[in-house]
Amino acid sequence: MKIAFLGTGIMGGHMAGHLLAAGHELTVFNRTRSKAEALISRGARWAESPRLAAEGQDVLISIVGMPDDVQEVYMGEQGVFGASDPPEVVIDMTTSTPTLARTLAEAATARGIASIDAPVSGGPVGAESASLSIMVGGDTDAVARVWSLFESMGKTVIHQGGPGYGQHTKMVNQILLAGSMIGLAESMAYAEAAGLDPAKVISSIRDGAAGSRALTDFGPKILKGDFTPGFYAKHYLKDLGIALDEAARMDLKLPMLALVQGFYDRICRQGLNQCGTHVLSAVMAADQGSEQASRALSGLKSAGQ
Amino acid sequence: MKIAFLGTGIMGGHMAGHLLAAGHELTVFNRTRSKAEALISRGARWAESPRLAAEGQDVLISIVGMPDDVQEVYMGEQGVFGASDPPEVVIDMTTSTPTLARTLAEAATARGIASIDAPVSGGPVGAESASLSIMVGGDTDAVARVWSLFESMGKTVIHQGGPGYGQHTKMVNQILLAGSMIGLAESMAYAEAAGLDPAKVISSIRDGAAGSRALTDFGPKILKGDFTPGFYAKHYLKDLGIALDEAARMDLKLPMLALVQGFYDRICRQGLNQCGTHVLSAVMAADQGSEQASRALSGLKSAGQ
Repeated sequence: MKIAFLGTGIMGGHMAGHLLAAGHELTVFNRTRSKAEALISRGARWAESPRLAAEGQDVLISIVGMPDDVQEVYMGEQGVFGASDPPEVVIDMTTSTPTLARTLAEAATARGIASIDAPVSGGPVGAESASLSIMVGGDTDAVARVWSLFESMGKTVIHQGGPGYGQHTKMVNQILLAGSMIGLAESMAYAEAAGLDPAKVISSIRDGAAGSRALTDFGPKILKGDFTPGFYAKHYLKDLGIALDEAARMDLKLPMLALVQGFYDRICRQGLNQCGTHVLSAVMAADQGSEQASRALSGLKSAGQ
Repeated sequence: MKIAFLGTGIMGGHMAGHLLAAGHELTVFNRTRSKAEALISRGARWAESPRLAAEGQDVLISIVGMPDDVQEVYMGEQGVFGASDPPEVVIDMTTSTPTLARTLAEAATARGIASIDAPVSGGPVGAESASLSIMVGGDTDAVARVWSLFESMGKTVIHQGGPGYGQHTKMVNQILLAGSMIGLAESMAYAEAAGLDPAKVISSIRDGAAGSRALTDFGPKILKGDFTPGFYAKHYLKDLGIALDEAARMDLKLPMLALVQGFYDRICRQGLNQCGTHVLSAVMAADQGSEQASRALSGLKSAGQ
């Protein structure tokens, strides 16, 4: 297929690479061109704008930063919807708002385009190994037409419903994760305060009823004071805000989610936005008087992380 | 070894059975004698009180309901510490307070007895299959002397530190679990409000970063409206209260834990104390107006569960 791919960052770069490897004809656009060079050297064509990338394609895929970026990429002056010969199907794989996904789908339909929302989980590792979970929302026929593309990029591909339902599913994932992250932070703060050896504690509890991927993945990093991202705190803050906004729209009260959003808001305002999500554990430990955690955070802030 | 085993309920019954099977000479006591009959028919001797059970034993093990029961079993009028020929080592495997564990250890030491706290996780299934995680606190020499008993009852046996450290480790486990339970409840409430199919959603997210044992174990039960215990809400409420008390004693603020404790307090006051912990998801869904959840809860309350 002829595919335009917008957003060749840490996630999109790997995902677009799998499409190239599968034999598709790729055109790429990225705000910073240097991040697309690896794909260009493998045969992808460069385009100067989303609109120019979109011209004459079968399918267009985007994975960019924030909902505002998604809006600009599609509806902006140089946006995809301004193309004179637009793709038949557009797929936004950014984690964005269900509401925007529905807005895009309506705007696309008015132009004879099918629009799909398909956010992912699995992070850079999942993107590189094509083992992402892809949560798909959109019209059934359109989804069927691009299914093989999803299978080139992910392992768990599930069609969750109409426009916006991919994004809603990703929000469910992020809410569940919020519980894991705050549970990890509070339990490790308790362990430290009680004078336990956290590594031994993790050995006792990781395979039991309280076990989680967050504990397995982040527990050892927290113990080493390694707060480099996996998944950026700033991106998680965005997702938590989306989930809370959508919940409010649905008259849904999620007190744990609001609590966790408050912590990440503070984390980002304290200059720790470039840290991994698990920096929450250090912030909570420092709040409780842990000198080790306080030193780690000072280092991270002064490094501009 | 000559072992007294106090508390032959759903956990203790299985655990004592493994000790019998390993060839130990067992004396048992339980508040309700009928729950000890299976062990007696396999050769265990019955004793009429904790004190009488304790006389002339090498080791005594208890796993009873609440911290008050533990106190009564050891310090009460007919308690273990009143024995004229007490065991060399006593082991309380109840989930109880770190503070009481230290008090018992001091009282034991004054009588020339070594006292170990060794709460478990893994539930009735883990007790039956001898795959429990056993979190051990106590004097190193005493722990070494009874290590083989732990290995007969559990798979993951870890010595966490001195008296009280087994209980502290169990509290870390329960705090971590609180995050999983509230994350599960809020994420499923969101899924229902958004009109998603929760079973499909779980398929998308269970193997990813938000995955947890709580989701894997309880997600399918919640979808079926099956709130029979695994682990009783009333016992979890006890544990959450212990963790909050100990945290307050250490000047530790755990806002998520306090939030979750409030939910379980309400659950138990609403007559759902005999339900499994995952009833939290139904309570939250009902709060948000789910008719299906409200109907399920009415049924549970009228069944006296």
